[in-house]
Amino acid sequence: MSEITAHGEKRLVLASGRAHPELAQEIAKELGTELLPTSAYDFANGETYVRFEDSVRGTDAFVIQAHPAPINNWIMEQLIMIDSLKRASAKRITVVSPFYPYARQDKKHRGREPISARLMADLYKTAGADRLMSVDLHTAQIQGFFDGPVDHLMAIPLLADYVRTRVDLNKVTVVSPDTGRVRVAEQWADRLGGAPLAFVHKSRDVNVPNSAVSKTVVGQIEDRDCVLIDDMIDTGGTISGAVSVLKNAGARSVIIAATHAVFSDPATQRLAESGAREVVVTNTLPIPAEKRFESLTVLSIAPLIARAIHEVFDDGSVTSLFDGRS
Amino acid sequence: MSEITAHGEKRLVLASGRAHPELAQEIAKELGTELLPTSAYDFANGETYVRFEDSVRGTDAFVIQAHPAPINNWIMEQLIMIDSLKRASAKRITVVSPFYPYARQDKKHRGREPISARLMADLYKTAGADRLMSVDLHTAQIQGFFDGPVDHLMAIPLLADYVRTRVDLNKVTVVSPDTGRVRVAEQWADRLGGAPLAFVHKSRDVNVPNSAVSKTVVGQIEDRDCVLIDDMIDTGGTISGAVSVLKNAGARSVIIAATHAVFSDPATQRLAESGAREVVVTNTLPIPAEKRFESLTVLSIAPLIARAIHEVFDDGSVTSLFDGRS
Amino acid sequence: MSEITAHGEKRLVLASGRAHPELAQEIAKELGTELLPTSAYDFANGETYVRFEDSVRGTDAFVIQAHPAPINNWIMEQLIMIDSLKRASAKRITVVSPFYPYARQDKKHRGREPISARLMADLYKTAGADRLMSVDLHTAQIQGFFDGPVDHLMAIPLLADYVRTRVDLNKVTVVSPDTGRVRVAEQWADRLGGAPLAFVHKSRDVNVPNSAVSKTVVGQIEDRDCVLIDDMIDTGGTISGAVSVLKNAGARSVIIAATHAVFSDPATQRLAESGAREVVVTNTLPIPAEKRFESLTVLSIAPLIARAIHEVFDDGSVTSLFDGRS
Amino acid sequence: MSEITAHGEKRLVLASGRAHPELAQEIAKELGTELLPTSAYDFANGETYVRFEDSVRGTDAFVIQAHPAPINNWIMEQLIMIDSLKRASAKRITVVSPFYPYARQDKKHRGREPISARLMADLYKTAGADRLMSVDLHTAQIQGFFDGPVDHLMAIPLLADYVRTRVDLNKVTVVSPDTGRVRVAEQWADRLGGAPLAFVHKSRDVNVPNSAVSKTVVGQIEDRDCVLIDDMIDTGGTISGAVSVLKNAGARSVIIAATHAVFSDPATQRLAESGAREVVVTNTLPIPAEKRFESLTVLSIAPLIARAIHEVFDDGSVTSLFDGRS
Amino acid sequence: MSEITAHGEKRLVLASGRAHPELAQEIAKELGTELLPTSAYDFANGETYVRFEDSVRGTDAFVIQAHPAPINNWIMEQLIMIDSLKRASAKRITVVSPFYPYARQDKKHRGREPISARLMADLYKTAGADRLMSVDLHTAQIQGFFDGPVDHLMAIPLLADYVRTRVDLNKVTVVSPDTGRVRVAEQWADRLGGAPLAFVHKSRDVNVPNSAVSKTVVGQIEDRDCVLIDDMIDTGGTISGAVSVLKNAGARSVIIAATHAVFSDPATQRLAESGAREVVVTNTLPIPAEKRFESLTVLSIAPLIARAIHEVFDDGSVTSLFDGRS
Amino acid sequence: MSEITAHGEKRLVLASGRAHPELAQEIAKELGTELLPTSAYDFANGETYVRFEDSVRGTDAFVIQAHPAPINNWIMEQLIMIDSLKRASAKRITVVSPFYPYARQDKKHRGREPISARLMADLYKTAGADRLMSVDLHTAQIQGFFDGPVDHLMAIPLLADYVRTRVDLNKVTVVSPDTGRVRVAEQWADRLGGAPLAFVHKSRDVNVPNSAVSKTVVGQIEDRDCVLIDDMIDTGGTISGAVSVLKNAGARSVIIAATHAVFSDPATQRLAESGAREVVVTNTLPIPAEKRFESLTVLSIAPLIARAIHEVFDDGSVTSLFDGRS
Repeated sequence: MSEITAHGEKRLVLASGRAHPELAQEIAKELGTELLPTSAYDFANGETYVRFEDSVRGTDAFVIQAHPAPINNWIMEQLIMIDSLKRASAKRITVVSPFYPYARQDKKHRGREPISARLMADLYKTAGADRLMSVDLHTAQIQGFFDGPVDHLMAIPLLADYVRTRVDLNKVTVVSPDTGRVRVAEQWADRLGGAPLAFVHKSRDVNVPNSAVSKTVVGQIEDRDCVLIDDMIDTGGTISGAVSVLKNAGARSVIIAATHAVFSDPATQRLAESGAREVVVTNTLPIPAEKRFESLTVLSIAPLIARAIHEVFDDGSVTSLFDGRS
Repeated sequence: MSEITAHGEKRLVLASGRAHPELAQEIAKELGTELLPTSAYDFANGETYVRFEDSVRGTDAFVIQAHPAPINNWIMEQLIMIDSLKRASAKRITVVSPFYPYARQDKKHRGREPISARLMADLYKTAGADRLMSVDLHTAQIQGFFDGPVDHLMAIPLLADYVRTRVDLNKVTVVSPDTGRVRVAEQWADRLGGAPLAFVHKSRDVNVPNSAVSKTVVGQIEDRDCVLIDDMIDTGGTISGAVSVLKNAGARSVIIAATHAVFSDPATQRLAESGAREVVVTNTLPIPAEKRFESLTVLSIAPLIARAIHEVFDDGSVTSLFDGRS
Repeated sequence: MSEITAHGEKRLVLASGRAHPELAQEIAKELGTELLPTSAYDFANGETYVRFEDSVRGTDAFVIQAHPAPINNWIMEQLIMIDSLKRASAKRITVVSPFYPYARQDKKHRGREPISARLMADLYKTAGADRLMSVDLHTAQIQGFFDGPVDHLMAIPLLADYVRTRVDLNKVTVVSPDTGRVRVAEQWADRLGGAPLAFVHKSRDVNVPNSAVSKTVVGQIEDRDCVLIDDMIDTGGTISGAVSVLKNAGARSVIIAATHAVFSDPATQRLAESGAREVVVTNTLPIPAEKRFESLTVLSIAPLIARAIHEVFDDGSVTSLFDGRS
Repeated sequence: MSEITAHGEKRLVLASGRAHPELAQEIAKELGTELLPTSAYDFANGETYVRFEDSVRGTDAFVIQAHPAPINNWIMEQLIMIDSLKRASAKRITVVSPFYPYARQDKKHRGREPISARLMADLYKTAGADRLMSVDLHTAQIQGFFDGPVDHLMAIPLLADYVRTRVDLNKVTVVSPDTGRVRVAEQWADRLGGAPLAFVHKSRDVNVPNSAVSKTVVGQIEDRDCVLIDDMIDTGGTISGAVSVLKNAGARSVIIAATHAVFSDPATQRLAESGAREVVVTNTLPIPAEKRFESLTVLSIAPLIARAIHEVFDDGSVTSLFDGRS
Repeated sequence: MSEITAHGEKRLVLASGRAHPELAQEIAKELGTELLPTSAYDFANGETYVRFEDSVRGTDAFVIQAHPAPINNWIMEQLIMIDSLKRASAKRITVVSPFYPYARQDKKHRGREPISARLMADLYKTAGADRLMSVDLHTAQIQGFFDGPVDHLMAIPLLADYVRTRVDLNKVTVVSPDTGRVRVAEQWADRLGGAPLAFVHKSRDVNVPNSAVSKTVVGQIEDRDCVLIDDMIDTGGTISGAVSVLKNAGARSVIIAATHAVFSDPATQRLAESGAREVVVTNTLPIPAEKRFESLTVLSIAPLIARAIHEVFDDGSVTSLFDGRS
Repeated sequence: MSEITAHGEKRLVLASGRAHPELAQEIAKELGTELLPTSAYDFANGETYVRFEDSVRGTDAFVIQAHPAPINNWIMEQLIMIDSLKRASAKRITVVSPFYPYARQDKKHRGREPISARLMADLYKTAGADRLMSVDLHTAQIQGFFDGPVDHLMAIPLLADYVRTRVDLNKVTVVSPDTGRVRVAEQWADRLGGAPLAFVHKSRDVNVPNSAVSKTVVGQIEDRDCVLIDDMIDTGGTISGAVSVLKNAGARSVIIAATHAVFSDPATQRLAESGAREVVVTNTLPIPAEKRFESLTVLSIAPLIARAIHEVFDDGSVTSLFDGRS
């Protein structure tokens, strides 16, 4: 008798960083559990300390962290949490980063630049992450940066279901604020009953040779209810500029819809004064009271993340949450 | 005296697979050298054998391979060549794949799909590649799939310089054949003097509620010389369909410009009969005589690749070939 | 209460490539299950696409692929399947390659050659394979090429049990067709009651100094029932040549026995006309009707593979299937 | 129905090297099981052979090895055991090395030295170890040398509980034999009711300028019961020298306490003749009869290791064995 | 002629992060060169952007960064710089972090803690660092955390040479502020002519049984010139407390000497008011004017780092700078 | 001016372990240099210490070690030497192990065995080896165990050139002592003018049904000068048994030729008394005086290794030393 046997059992724990505890708590509540008790603080020189108060040995651990400013701090905290879980014998570690940090630096725009989005994936892996979960990656190719499974959740259904209740589908046009988001606008258009598309772009007037370059809209806008979409709103310059262009082009109304509310200054002022009828975002990032404004609607991403975590823990299908798309 | 010293020296060798020897020879000629003598053949059961006839010890080796059909065969041949160079003590190995294989599978479009473009990068690395060089990646994010330096060459300047001589810049509009290439169309527009943009798209007629979905163009086309751009032409269905849409929308003429001439059947027939005035491509892929047609113009990519290889060998700047862009 | 618990459960799935679906189906049937529903096809330019139709999250996945010509295609398909499973969160991935590809390139025969058999092991690992299962490796050392567990199945017992019913054990001699398989011939001899050994070899006649080199047999053959063994038959040149040598040396009859029926042209003709009484092989590779001939006997390897897969899934002992040998 | 399911089960096996079978057997007995039947022997040229007699597929395997002289032999045996378990599909492999080999070479003391303690951690990892368990590492930083979970067990509580019964706590002083162990002495002092500290050191006499350097003690010793502590006793030179210094400084008595009894010659003689009242060690290393002496007390570490193994197998908390310290 | 040859050449570049540009410039000046022109800034949401303005292809690159608060920001900036250099084909990348970040979290003090100092080493490696250079690591074992060469520079000779001019060597005692630095104090003592040692410690009064625990000094202090040493001064609590203890114990004077001036609040006030005659540190970290005080002496570490970089570039010996010690 | 440039230079150093210093010195002499000054000794508990006395920064380092008993000791010493060189910034490290350790455990002969020869390759890699050089590997597939270049030197030409002078080529037969070396015997036969082959084997007498199994020779031996070959001679049991069989079969004389003289007891006695006319080996392993005997001839392998090292350092061709074979 040279063996001891025991029944296998799976245990899920949710660990949360300090960047956006409300979201983590909401996810835990949706799952019917509580967050892992954790000590986390910064030393006087800025070094971050983390310790988990309960044993995590053999668990299926999810490390939730949001990434607002100061983003580098929250990244390091999350890496240190992963390292702690790894060294404490967690069985599997899934990074949950609803807003993927450094997603915009996903390629070298010029020589001698970093590809910070790939670096992030490698840092997560090095710290000990086995899996990654995120919402509406800036480009879907970021999935391929991580050497392991990535659960790519989509907020577009959530946002579109809401927007659908706010517009006349026969009058709606989906607008991309630049040339890089037209594909995403097309996905929105599909969800809004095959709405027409347009995009904003710097261009000469076609009919006036040698005219100066200015922002203009390609597509028919006049008397339309425009849904101006983007994956994230940072300082809000591009998107509020696009509202003006649409208004000048005769748009009847403009609703802005975006997944990630980065809202760096002066985003709040710009959006509030942009002339948009409504700004719809999710809470993948914390939006403090002073950054909120009257026409802002915040939808919660927590139920979606909670369902995805449950499917992962239960070996179900995350893809099924999105009709097979990934 | 416990040391022997010698002067350092750098040696460049060019190895070529069997998929497109003409291109490799042209590159060698541009560099003023010859290809590394190589034995390569397939055994009866399809297994590929490669052996280099000269020593490659300590060399800076570049492994040139094109990737037409049967593409899996050429991939395996290139991996085997890299393995041979590694085991024969080449000092540094740079993969030169002008058309990056599996570039379109750069993300999971649906659940349980592979990300084959990332897999390719990892296979190259595993075989022994230190660096990667390619031309006009399907998406620039593929740079981030490889864990090491990537030299991303751009054929747009080459193509645009040629197209510029073929059109009236005051009458030209750059057109993307779908919603995913509008950003690239914008780069073209910049190179053609700030030309206006348009894109082709499946949509309802804005003015006819509940109308059927059909292909339509967004942007002003009437009486314009259209430059319809793409990174690659495979079976030619999308691009020749787009020519029809543009013609129907009143375009004066259409020139098609693309970097990679995959030309799977029935691309040649479709393009020849599409109504396009001219089809301009490069020779990143071999284009056999039977796939050529009268209105086809093939520009050679060899000088660009040769210059890039020289900069890499010489520790110069590849970025400088493209005004700092990457 | 910061934990959710669930009972552990193990789930086995069998995925199959397109090279030899009959074998995969037979294995599935032996196991009392069905193959994982899979979409797989090639694009016009030869790129391979794979998608699994059911969730594989958390499963113990076995990826069965055979490797006939065009072998590079089937290798790439298998790698892409592994990548898909990895990214779809399969828990453990076992490659089942009954005929290990590139097994003959298991060393550098000359300078600047690849070691493609090692490369294959690394490609499997890179794509995401945790384990490897194969039948009668060309050399057993290939086990050591893979950085992980290898289940090395042996078809010799299966073949020998059949051959034993076809010969007079007191008249049988086991013959290796060259100098490299004498050790394997010895294993056969043990299974056939300690039969004598011989091998075919290029040599001068010992009794005629300075005679020309020709194929000759070392060992006593006259009036013996010869069992001519090999691990694989490719074009059949060596093995059918050996039949002639044995016949000329006075052999009463010759039975050919080999595990892997590569059967590249003109193997079928050569074997059918070789003078061998019977050719016995397994179905590790597909043998289409047009490659079969009257004296060919094909034994199914599926029961053996099915049993091994079951032992692996069940944490039993694969070694026990072979009396402790590996 | 494309799946087979089974209930998960965990199985623990204990494998032991040949360096200290008594300890392994004692651990097995504490756990209520037996050691994995194993064949292990050395070939004539010193190469080590290992084979496990029972299946280990899917098990949670612990590889116990002690590291006395000839230490390199036991290291290689342990690495080979790990390789065997990995290739035999053990699910998880935990190295149990109560005395961590090469722990003293944990940094470069001078240029061009190795860091053998880090090398050891990497060798374990390379062979296939997932986790590491050890007792009283020479420096706690060695935990960070291993890329994975480390269970760092402490023998100080065991030793201190015993010593506490042997001294008058009001008269005791804890002494470090050199400047590098004062921190550890402090931990001892805490466990002995806040006893005062002292250390032995080479120094000039403070009151006699330019005096010769000699061993001296810093701290008050006169009429105290000294507990002279160290993590290991190798040849015993430093520690027995320290006893003399303490005696000369007026110590009432000296007890030596150390975790690892390396006891290289002439340790036994030195310790027996040192004047120490008692020498207390554990059995992390084998202590053959001829190395024992009258005043030696050996405490068994087996119960502690057994409890830790049980916690690891059971996903409990090892830290809890030490009041949260690690 | 299938080769192109060129003479080998080595090129050194110095890149600097934004944490402490003065130090980097001073190092560059010592080396007779200039810093690599670099664009670096933070986006509104805190994401860091870096781009090098000159080609770095084939260079021997040194990435200098200091690590004051906000330390996580400077770490991420340094990682991003390394990634940029790697992707821009630098030949070799050496991290120069004079103050190693997270050095104090070099072990698990309690269960479920990270080992952040090891994590840092792995993050550097993952980003692309080949080598590491640092000054006075908190524990020398951190050398072993990095999988590659580490140049460990020592500031003690620099500090000791200065202190030697400020004290009467016959009256000096070297004091460790706690039990963990006594070994380092011993190194100081050697450099100050074999001075006696002491350390500060929480303890009961030996002569008063059951007395309360308080800070006390072990070793003879009365009428001595104390040199109180440490590797770093963070908030200054421990070290200034130690000054009081020494003064109370009759010390004639106290000089504080430490390598790294972290100086988190309220370090400046505490040190200025501690009663120490002089506080001597180096500029491994920036010390802004408002943190300086009258009795503070700052020695420059730049000449030492510059010499070490030169030895590394030149394949000389760094060890030789420290008489063979490492 | 943000760069410093210097001319590249290559420096070769030879480091030697303590197992066979004579061979290393002979190699150094052939190369016209001296061995790197090295301190190496074992601590009392068997731990090995190594330090190099000269700087090795930037060098092309070759680490020569032989592997006689106690082989595990010499392996660990070599690993520690590699670690030292890596951490001391050697540019490239080539392991020179003339007799590859654990070569015979190159596959799993039975279940739950290690593949120690692969483990060795991985240990070398982990310690820091970039390249590997060895002589007459037990099986050539071991080349594929190492992930990097392997220089596989052949002693057969050296041995055969000598043997050729000792036999009548018209009377010679090459004999393999078992079934596993027949291929190697064939290589010998080629070098001895196409001599006939034979092998020794356990078998029944073909002409006596049901006879007992005994050692017998397959092939014609009567009145022939036999050259009995092997890669290594360990205890000499098999090879001296084969001499008897050959003599009994009527052989005129027997010469034994092998590359590696392991010579474990009682090899010397067995060989001396075997009846062989001469035993020819090389000095890949040390052969102390007490193991030598009258009919033993030892050829030096040093010139071959020295030439190979020179080719590697000089980026020449090692393959060219063996007419293109590897």
